[in-house]
Amino acid sequence: MLDKISDIAGYMQQLGQQARQASRTLAGVPTAQKNQALEAIAEELDGAREQLMGENSLDLEKGREKGLDSALLDRLELTPARIDSMIEGVRQIAALADPVGEIFDMKYLPSGIQVGRMRVPLGVVGIIYESRPNVTADAAALCLKSGNAAVLRGGSEAYYSNQAIAQCIAAGLNKAGLPETVVQVVATTDRQAVGAMITMPDYVDVIIPRGGKGLIERISQDARVPVIKHLDGICHVYIDDQADLDKAYAVAMNAKTQRYGTCNTMETLLVAEDVAAQALARLAPALDEKGVELRGCARSCELIEGCTSATDEDWDTEYLAPILSIRVVPGLAEAIDHINTHSSQHTDAIITENYTRARRFLTEVDSSSVMVNASTRFADGFEYGLGAEIGISTDKFHARGPVGLEGLTSVKYIVLGDGHIRS
Amino acid sequence: MLDKISDIAGYMQQLGQQARQASRTLAGVPTAQKNQALEAIAEELDGAREQLMGENSLDLEKGREKGLDSALLDRLELTPARIDSMIEGVRQIAALADPVGEIFDMKYLPSGIQVGRMRVPLGVVGIIYESRPNVTADAAALCLKSGNAAVLRGGSEAYYSNQAIAQCIAAGLNKAGLPETVVQVVATTDRQAVGAMITMPDYVDVIIPRGGKGLIERISQDARVPVIKHLDGICHVYIDDQADLDKAYAVAMNAKTQRYGTCNTMETLLVAEDVAAQALARLAPALDEKGVELRGCARSCELIEGCTSATDEDWDTEYLAPILSIRVVPGLAEAIDHINTHSSQHTDAIITENYTRARRFLTEVDSSSVMVNASTRFADGFEYGLGAEIGISTDKFHARGPVGLEGLTSVKYIVLGDGHIRS
Repeated sequence: MLDKISDIAGYMQQLGQQARQASRTLAGVPTAQKNQALEAIAEELDGAREQLMGENSLDLEKGREKGLDSALLDRLELTPARIDSMIEGVRQIAALADPVGEIFDMKYLPSGIQVGRMRVPLGVVGIIYESRPNVTADAAALCLKSGNAAVLRGGSEAYYSNQAIAQCIAAGLNKAGLPETVVQVVATTDRQAVGAMITMPDYVDVIIPRGGKGLIERISQDARVPVIKHLDGICHVYIDDQADLDKAYAVAMNAKTQRYGTCNTMETLLVAEDVAAQALARLAPALDEKGVELRGCARSCELIEGCTSATDEDWDTEYLAPILSIRVVPGLAEAIDHINTHSSQHTDAIITENYTRARRFLTEVDSSSVMVNASTRFADGFEYGLGAEIGISTDKFHARGPVGLEGLTSVKYIVLGDGHIRS
Repeated sequence: MLDKISDIAGYMQQLGQQARQASRTLAGVPTAQKNQALEAIAEELDGAREQLMGENSLDLEKGREKGLDSALLDRLELTPARIDSMIEGVRQIAALADPVGEIFDMKYLPSGIQVGRMRVPLGVVGIIYESRPNVTADAAALCLKSGNAAVLRGGSEAYYSNQAIAQCIAAGLNKAGLPETVVQVVATTDRQAVGAMITMPDYVDVIIPRGGKGLIERISQDARVPVIKHLDGICHVYIDDQADLDKAYAVAMNAKTQRYGTCNTMETLLVAEDVAAQALARLAPALDEKGVELRGCARSCELIEGCTSATDEDWDTEYLAPILSIRVVPGLAEAIDHINTHSSQHTDAIITENYTRARRFLTEVDSSSVMVNASTRFADGFEYGLGAEIGISTDKFHARGPVGLEGLTSVKYIVLGDGHIRS
């Protein structure tokens, strides 16, 4: 079945047309039926555990032959626990409120008409992702619940796993009386398929790439449809000279060491000069004990034994590793300036007890999440109460920060009158 | 002063850099100071009436020499009344609430953090428009109030008028202590400037073209930044067989004849078979009396004397003229189907007394404004209570329908904690 498609462009056109058609059907489907389909998909996945593991082992075998590194093989692997959490994820999305059809802001205007807005699906969502096969189920469920048809293109290394998951999704849709074309998983590993998918504005309304920065930049460069981008997470914590240093310690340790490889992990710590010696005296040994390498400005190196000099590049690096850059700054203004210059506009936090400084930080830092006295690790759809997320947008256009069901919708104005005409 | 710039690309880069810098300053400027600047701009325009008329007469003279048609010359002309309304427009924007900094949806989450969103400017807005010079003042005022730096590129035929308005804007900004680079009007008519402007993602966050469909399609095609598009307005009114025919008459007449050249004017009338004879017996003569040419389906031609046969093309045409296409349909389902096939997804209305049909029309018609028993002519920022609009978006991404101050903003998540860490 793999790569038997000769006319990739024609195949993708067909997928696109089918998706557009399915999106029209799906837009009018009631919440209960969408939830039925999600439940049926969960059941299908549950009933296909052996097959999923079997197909996944084909991918793993091919991956080993190709010499994929162990981190990649780990991401690729479907364990029973991961299948559990994939199924649980689909059920959680069924339990979320349906965003489609929500009517809000209805107001009477002086002319007598009543105007407000109704939330509607975007239409067709294209998702391009890398090795983790669970994304296939996650993305399908989020698109389905938000009323969007989905075209999913997973990594070639997860081909067999994704196709097996696709079959469960199709069977679930079928059981609930929905067209299988509501969710289509691209059945080729040919890269030309990606090129086609991102240049079909007639059939695809938005592309969401999930993966490394390189993938996302390439796609954004070539796309002819809007792209919701999740670029890097160079997150900062600034310890103000009016910080409660216990909170500063707790938040900085959590932001750096709870997990190293996530986009909301702190990569640079900024410390106000007046509290730098005291704050770092406690933080540096604790970080060292966790095995975190410290790279600092000149002043940090004076204060911390074993700290190496940070280069200019360090301030712009997302380590995704137990490395932290540290900079001592005169105060709030310089901290904000450093953040607005070097942050990837993902998530940045201030630790302070000072009301005015907290308010200024919230206003002036131009990032998708701005925090006061809280760990950057909270920047996540679940932690924000949005439910599952399709990604964290570092764009300012359309959707910003964690993108859940609402980010996959648009709105339309609705106007109610009683024969009203404009004069 | 005209076209003395030799290095257009370099000039546009410089404008872009200056705009980015100005946008950072402007983001933190309090409401009162932005309003001061708007008031100062209004005063400058008021004090420069003679100069504005003088520069405008240069444009008119050149336009006549170039043989511009009378409609274009009319749009280009700055009369005392038009200057009044331009000034009034700037003052109205000063009177609108400031969208920037609005905090909403603050909720406590189970972890104890409080999460919500804050409205923020997009950054730098590029606006490309055609002959009407008043757009220069409108667009500058909307961008300024929403905290965005603006790069404005007006039509070459309005060059002198736009530069004169630009001087007033600069003087007003100056008086209020804001950098003049907050609003920059491109000082060249070289088309290369447009090409540069739409391909500078580092300096321009969004492009809003205002003008004909051709201009907008060209810009969307070549842009490397998001574009808020206002394409055509092929608006429909559907008279249901359960319509109140008095309301149907009033709305249809208003939707077609109140103004012919606007995007929210009805271009196609759909009538349910069961009431077609009765509804058209009253509407057709009234439309004829107004000089509206009628082009109909076979059934309409049977019912209306003097009605010519509509071609397939008619159903997809925005006439912007006293022409109306009419189609008799079996009922609601076919009306919705016609609309979702031929509408430009701008504004469509149903006339009905039936609750279930009204609800279905609101849900299933996928247009930026969907109306019940109200004239399509209401689709407008002022009528919706949004204040001035920068355009009416026919996109589903980011902003849809009339785009006022809110459409020129983004949001960021704000998270308030008390030393909270993620477990």
